[in-house]
Amino acid sequence: MEIQVFFTPQSIMGDLSDTVVVVIDALRMTSVAAYAIANGCVALKPMADVEEAILVARDHHALLGGERNALRIPGFDFSNSPHEYTREAIGGRRLVMTTTNGTQAILAVSAAKRVLLGSFINADAVAELLKKVDRLAIVCAGTNGAFTLEDAVAAGCIVDRLIYRGSDVLLADDALAAHLLYQGTRGMLNDMLAKISHGKHLVQLGFAEDLFFCLQEDILCAVPERGRDGWFA
Amino acid sequence: MEIQVFFTPQSIMGDLSDTVVVVIDALRMTSVAAYAIANGCVALKPMADVEEAILVARDHHALLGGERNALRIPGFDFSNSPHEYTREAIGGRRLVMTTTNGTQAILAVSAAKRVLLGSFINADAVAELLKKVDRLAIVCAGTNGAFTLEDAVAAGCIVDRLIYRGSDVLLADDALAAHLLYQGTRGMLNDMLAKISHGKHLVQLGFAEDLFFCLQEDILCAVPERGRDGWFA
Repeated sequence: MEIQVFFTPQSIMGDLSDTVVVVIDALRMTSVAAYAIANGCVALKPMADVEEAILVARDHHALLGGERNALRIPGFDFSNSPHEYTREAIGGRRLVMTTTNGTQAILAVSAAKRVLLGSFINADAVAELLKKVDRLAIVCAGTNGAFTLEDAVAAGCIVDRLIYRGSDVLLADDALAAHLLYQGTRGMLNDMLAKISHGKHLVQLGFAEDLFFCLQEDILCAVPERGRDGWFA
Repeated sequence: MEIQVFFTPQSIMGDLSDTVVVVIDALRMTSVAAYAIANGCVALKPMADVEEAILVARDHHALLGGERNALRIPGFDFSNSPHEYTREAIGGRRLVMTTTNGTQAILAVSAAKRVLLGSFINADAVAELLKKVDRLAIVCAGTNGAFTLEDAVAAGCIVDRLIYRGSDVLLADDALAAHLLYQGTRGMLNDMLAKISHGKHLVQLGFAEDLFFCLQEDILCAVPERGRDGWFA
């Protein structure tokens, strides 16, 4: 298995049509998506724009979730905080999401063979699902085009779980770096939040609990994957 | 001091006009440049094209060095191997260089306030020279637009030397990641060459000794810096 990690959507190179892609926005979009699916959300669709999201939600009788500048969008059912996406709230319902970085990254890889959503919380499940894949690209959402440490470390966490499975992995330099970053920060990421730009910002906004939740490893089996209809389930 | 690391020239964001930039192409261009200056090269100029390089060298009675596809360019005085740039060969002479990644990265930051060339071999000297700077960006040359581990680790080596000096550093996530990569690979990089894509390629071409030379830390005091005339000395 060839594994490549793109640290931002902007750094993607080459044709993805033969590549399985995992998109990571660890804080918080892809963590939230996995949690929503784990709690019975029927399917979710990432949209670039607020207006478009509202229209799609109306057409599909879906709930609306996401953020702009990390905060709830007026009129939306959920913000981007995982604890809102309980079984009571999301079970049996469709969800349309729009966020600053995560949904944009997902849309940037629309040409990929398969698209899945990964994070720390479902890293092992992602690896289990993809252990037989030939070409894997992990795409980090980053923050407004900039490298974001927690996404790179989450990519390294998934690489770690693939290596652990004895998959015959061939790591590009970026995947090797992501794995080194995961190994170098293991068990320290909570303490590092004060140093990480995006993490610091979210802590200042009062989302510390969200972050601790999203940084837990391997707690969920749900891996949202794009279906033929463009919805992730 | 704010420190940012761009892992490829393509990922540079923002205006560099107030920023001091260190360009790194550890294997081998910026290492070779530092070594040439240490051995008495009067000044060197990076050029994008072979033809242009030849013309500038003729006008300045300069020697020609560099590579295409890692190999010597026909008619050039030097390839991109540091051991060729001895005091006997380069002392008292000007040098025009053109390489696949390093010189292109240097040209990509031409708008920067200052431009210096760094690598493992002069990391400490770079840090000593720049310890009072307000805004520092370290730009990795990468390989044809892709993340390259040794450049990121060399960036982390320079960050390490700045932190060691007690400089009041504010690390962007990418600089923090580079430092973590440096700490995680300390003393192991020679052994990792077989895993690193660019390193592996150069070893296969018979350049293993060049690589061991270029991966030595802090052996030179020379830091090539762009002067007003566009030549580095």
